Amino acid sequence: MAEAVIFDTDPGIDDAMAIAFAHKSPAVDLLGLTTTFGNGTIEQTTANAVFLKNQLGLDCQVFQGAGAPLEIEFDGPAHHVHGSDALGDTGYDIPAAGNQPDAVTFIIDTVRARPHEVTLVAVGRMTNLALAVRKAPDIAKLVKRVVIMGGVLGSTGIPGNVTPVAEANIFGDPHAADEMMRADWPLVMVGLDVTMKTIMTNDLVERLAQHSQMGALLAEIGAFYQRFYREVLKREGYPVHDSLAVAYLMAPHLFETQAGPIRVATEGLSMGQTIMGDMSRAANYALDGWLDVPDKQACISVQAQAVLDLYMETLMS
Amino acid sequence: MAEAVIFDTDPGIDDAMAIAFAHKSPAVDLLGLTTTFGNGTIEQTTANAVFLKNQLGLDCQVFQGAGAPLEIEFDGPAHHVHGSDALGDTGYDIPAAGNQPDAVTFIIDTVRARPHEVTLVAVGRMTNLALAVRKAPDIAKLVKRVVIMGGVLGSTGIPGNVTPVAEANIFGDPHAADEMMRADWPLVMVGLDVTMKTIMTNDLVERLAQHSQMGALLAEIGAFYQRFYREVLKREGYPVHDSLAVAYLMAPHLFETQAGPIRVATEGLSMGQTIMGDMSRAANYALDGWLDVPDKQACISVQAQAVLDLYMETLMS
Repeated sequence: MAEAVIFDTDPGIDDAMAIAFAHKSPAVDLLGLTTTFGNGTIEQTTANAVFLKNQLGLDCQVFQGAGAPLEIEFDGPAHHVHGSDALGDTGYDIPAAGNQPDAVTFIIDTVRARPHEVTLVAVGRMTNLALAVRKAPDIAKLVKRVVIMGGVLGSTGIPGNVTPVAEANIFGDPHAADEMMRADWPLVMVGLDVTMKTIMTNDLVERLAQHSQMGALLAEIGAFYQRFYREVLKREGYPVHDSLAVAYLMAPHLFETQAGPIRVATEGLSMGQTIMGDMSRAANYALDGWLDVPDKQACISVQAQAVLDLYMETLMS
Repeated sequence: MAEAVIFDTDPGIDDAMAIAFAHKSPAVDLLGLTTTFGNGTIEQTTANAVFLKNQLGLDCQVFQGAGAPLEIEFDGPAHHVHGSDALGDTGYDIPAAGNQPDAVTFIIDTVRARPHEVTLVAVGRMTNLALAVRKAPDIAKLVKRVVIMGGVLGSTGIPGNVTPVAEANIFGDPHAADEMMRADWPLVMVGLDVTMKTIMTNDLVERLAQHSQMGALLAEIGAFYQRFYREVLKREGYPVHDSLAVAYLMAPHLFETQAGPIRVATEGLSMGQTIMGDMSRAANYALDGWLDVPDKQACISVQAQAVLDLYMETLMS
């Protein structure tokens, strides 16, 4: 049976790819897209979610979520990465979404209605999920699991992408992310440790574009991302980022994970850093902030080629 | 010609080993021991420095330094690691040191008197060095180089030893360490990334003990450290830590280093973390706190067996 998924997203170029991937996957039953600010303003990402729903032919609804982080200021849309419309400035007409139902209410109601059946996948700032748990702490015990694209352990040698130690989704609302990590639910972090190892080549993009209208749309949207990586970061191809969360749902055996408590630094130079503690060292650690943090899982390695194959097969099916 | 070295230290079991190593090394001319709090109170570490000077036959003087961190509270001596007298509770009578001349004044005067000739080696909290640079900013340009044992980059897969991301010397006075990192002087960080890879085995300790009175003293002092590693951290042997700073002075070719700006987190869960920035990614980084930070060097790998050989040869010469 397909896994019931609420997909929390801020489309976003790699979000668009991940939504298409989840939509086409037989393992995923998309219950709804909940939007968050990040790659664009909440108005933009919600409009983009509705646009993608229509273009990709999703049969689920869009729900509008938070427009700003819990405690810090919104650092502004990532125009230089995703374009001024957050979908690659392709020239498509993306109409305003108007009123969409509330994302946090949808998350809470859906999880309560289907206890232990609903998986939350979050590939943007974690603000909506944190707000849902604040409002309805009981849902932590009622979700099936939580899979996030965000963070970086650092111990794998991969640095942050917005500071030397922080990944953008976590940096954008570190307090929300820390609440996610302190909640007692089964959470898997799919971070830069693995997403930076899984590179969508220009060839693969082109093959998808030739294959279907969906592939052509993703290639059009992705061209801006491709240019950003080429011109600013000086590399060909781009990490699939958000799609890795979907790949983890479909094929967890392609990932190696490490268990331990995770916390998020919320201040100073390390703001947004995801830190995994090691309680086997507790006898010699300053433990402030580490006691009673339930273990999470973090991906530390990935069979990248197999994930890309899975993505291609699924999108071309 | 031997390198003129001021050795800033909080003896400390591994400090004692490092002092003996520097004393015996033909490459090092010890100008003075400056003491700092850490493994013990400043009174204890100063008494220990005088004790070691007498026992090891050093012909330099001891200077008393700071007794507390710049901005945070002293987190207390590491009795569980170094013993209640910070030298392994061997039962030796270690008399109080009485009045010793001021460490910060000694550092400033010596560096100014011998421009570009004096190397500062710091293997405890960096408080004295930070105070010296605050009081006499000109010395930053007048030292030959600065070599510290402290910190951990994390990208090598080695965690902190007092928190998941922090090493004890940096955690103990993060503001002082950050000032060291922001100063424009040639600094090499010899951190846990390499010290945790360089393990003094029980066999080596025993060989030294059989060889000389100095070796026997170090073995006696080291027994407490040995027990701590065996009973608390569940491993045989112990990292040589502070001696690696001396090894770097003598044989830098045994180390691989990485260059970049380094900052120290001074608050929150990451307090005491040493973070290396990567300015090649600057186009995509939040740069608050990273501009105009002069590059430092950090050791990322070491030929551990060669360093142990060097230590043994030097101590047995």
